Amino acid sequence: MKTPELLEKLLLGETRAVARAITKVEDGSSDAGVIMKTIFPKTGNAVVIGITGSPGAGKSSLVDKLALHYRDQGDRVGIVCVDPSSPFSGGAILGDRIRMQTLGLDKNVFIRSMATRGNLGGLSRATVDAVAILDAAGFDKVIVETVGVGQDEVEIVKTADVSVVVLVPGMGDDIQAIKAGIMEIGDVFVINKADRDGVLRTEKELEALLSLAHRPDLWNPPIVKTVATENKGIEDLSKAIESFDEFQKRDESSLERRKAIAKWRLLELVREKLLIDALAKTGTAEKIDEFALKVAKKDFDPYSAVEEILK
Amino acid sequence: MKTPELLEKLLLGETRAVARAITKVEDGSSDAGVIMKTIFPKTGNAVVIGITGSPGAGKSSLVDKLALHYRDQGDRVGIVCVDPSSPFSGGAILGDRIRMQTLGLDKNVFIRSMATRGNLGGLSRATVDAVAILDAAGFDKVIVETVGVGQDEVEIVKTADVSVVVLVPGMGDDIQAIKAGIMEIGDVFVINKADRDGVLRTEKELEALLSLAHRPDLWNPPIVKTVATENKGIEDLSKAIESFDEFQKRDESSLERRKAIAKWRLLELVREKLLIDALAKTGTAEKIDEFALKVAKKDFDPYSAVEEILK
Repeated sequence: MKTPELLEKLLLGETRAVARAITKVEDGSSDAGVIMKTIFPKTGNAVVIGITGSPGAGKSSLVDKLALHYRDQGDRVGIVCVDPSSPFSGGAILGDRIRMQTLGLDKNVFIRSMATRGNLGGLSRATVDAVAILDAAGFDKVIVETVGVGQDEVEIVKTADVSVVVLVPGMGDDIQAIKAGIMEIGDVFVINKADRDGVLRTEKELEALLSLAHRPDLWNPPIVKTVATENKGIEDLSKAIESFDEFQKRDESSLERRKAIAKWRLLELVREKLLIDALAKTGTAEKIDEFALKVAKKDFDPYSAVEEILK
Repeated sequence: MKTPELLEKLLLGETRAVARAITKVEDGSSDAGVIMKTIFPKTGNAVVIGITGSPGAGKSSLVDKLALHYRDQGDRVGIVCVDPSSPFSGGAILGDRIRMQTLGLDKNVFIRSMATRGNLGGLSRATVDAVAILDAAGFDKVIVETVGVGQDEVEIVKTADVSVVVLVPGMGDDIQAIKAGIMEIGDVFVINKADRDGVLRTEKELEALLSLAHRPDLWNPPIVKTVATENKGIEDLSKAIESFDEFQKRDESSLERRKAIAKWRLLELVREKLLIDALAKTGTAEKIDEFALKVAKKDFDPYSAVEEILK
């Protein structure tokens, strides 16, 4: 498929074209820039929902049930999974493949896992691009789900219109640790597996933490209780998401937020572009290899090596 | 303190000099390069232990107990916490401050939290530099603990001599998800909170997953059961860590591993240097701000904006 044909089909919402375009931005293919420039004016219609929380919180089930809920309302839903797996070797998730085989059979649900490709980074940038592609292709809801809870994942989730943080009862002492990382980004909080012991305690702890949080706006993040595996609380969650989305559209600080996101995205793109340009110069990749061996043997320190490489 | 004096005191192992040097590499201060070049030949004596696992696994308690165990053996121990908190606003962890006040009073234990500073990234690079500083300052063991489980954290932990992955019983369905992210990096696995139900099942699942994993060497990662809060299993853990460290020193693939780490580190440094140089050019920072607003207002697409910024 040539780029103009791909773009035409993408904007008509054809799944195959969407998948191919995402692969192109993920690989940093040469026509990725053209694709992104062309689709940009068509973006901004989807509600983008970022979902994060620690492994074990049941995020995948929650995302699946939320997606099916939206589909039943007549929406087209895109799911983008951000996967920190295999930073060195690449790789895919078994569970994710299984999900794709079930959910992915539904033509109104598109599911895609974004993994790191090689050492050049760009996962954050590629994920944000994939969301824009789904948006331009006419998906009504785009859900970004993170597998990990790291710096990159937090930043990606912050680029969503609505950020959802998923907890489970009985996290005990570690709620403090979680607080630091992800508490402040949540527009909506979910206590999943809410049929377990300790729900009330977790809710109280969460309320206490939220009362200490400083938000730039006047939003009071709601706490929704769900049992995703039994499809309980999913409608409440979708209502909470909708409320925040509407609040934000009215809110004057919204442009500031979008500007901060745009700035972060530009910096990501600048960083990636500079590295790609540097590595494209004759000999740079070889020099990095050569100096890596010297540093490993302790014949050279990394800082001096970088000076030599960029000379 | 001038740089030569700082370096002298650092190499004598003085805690204040160590703390100050870490702040300098974290801030990307102008003498960070000199510090790192000078100390590089003095590194390589510490055993660097990376500890990761999802929030709720009790990593902090485990790290504290392991540190105290080493201290009781007569070792000097450095702890570096990698904290994905507040990627936009900066900030520190309450629990971490409390830990510093207790553990940090011991002059043979140094504890430091690394957070992101601003949007320039560099957390991974700064963390690896902090480890090198502690190494050069004569700390016998350096423990790198991640709060999150994201891409950056996984990469940081991979740069350690020994990578420890911490799980808890009853992670159930989500062990699949964890597998993807962090299973393949573990040299030693810990099932913490091993007084809880479901230990045996988690152990069996973990064994099954490990039997499928592909390691580049012949090491068979041991599974250690601990109850960190009761100080149980800590000695077993320290023995497992020691075994892998000894195995690796004998193993021929060790240079390959060190080379891969050095290459990753060089790429991180190159990426950061290029961005800093680009932003140092007159007008670039202003241009980014200006185009961020245009992108936020949808007057400009990000890809064309980057071309304009780097023109």
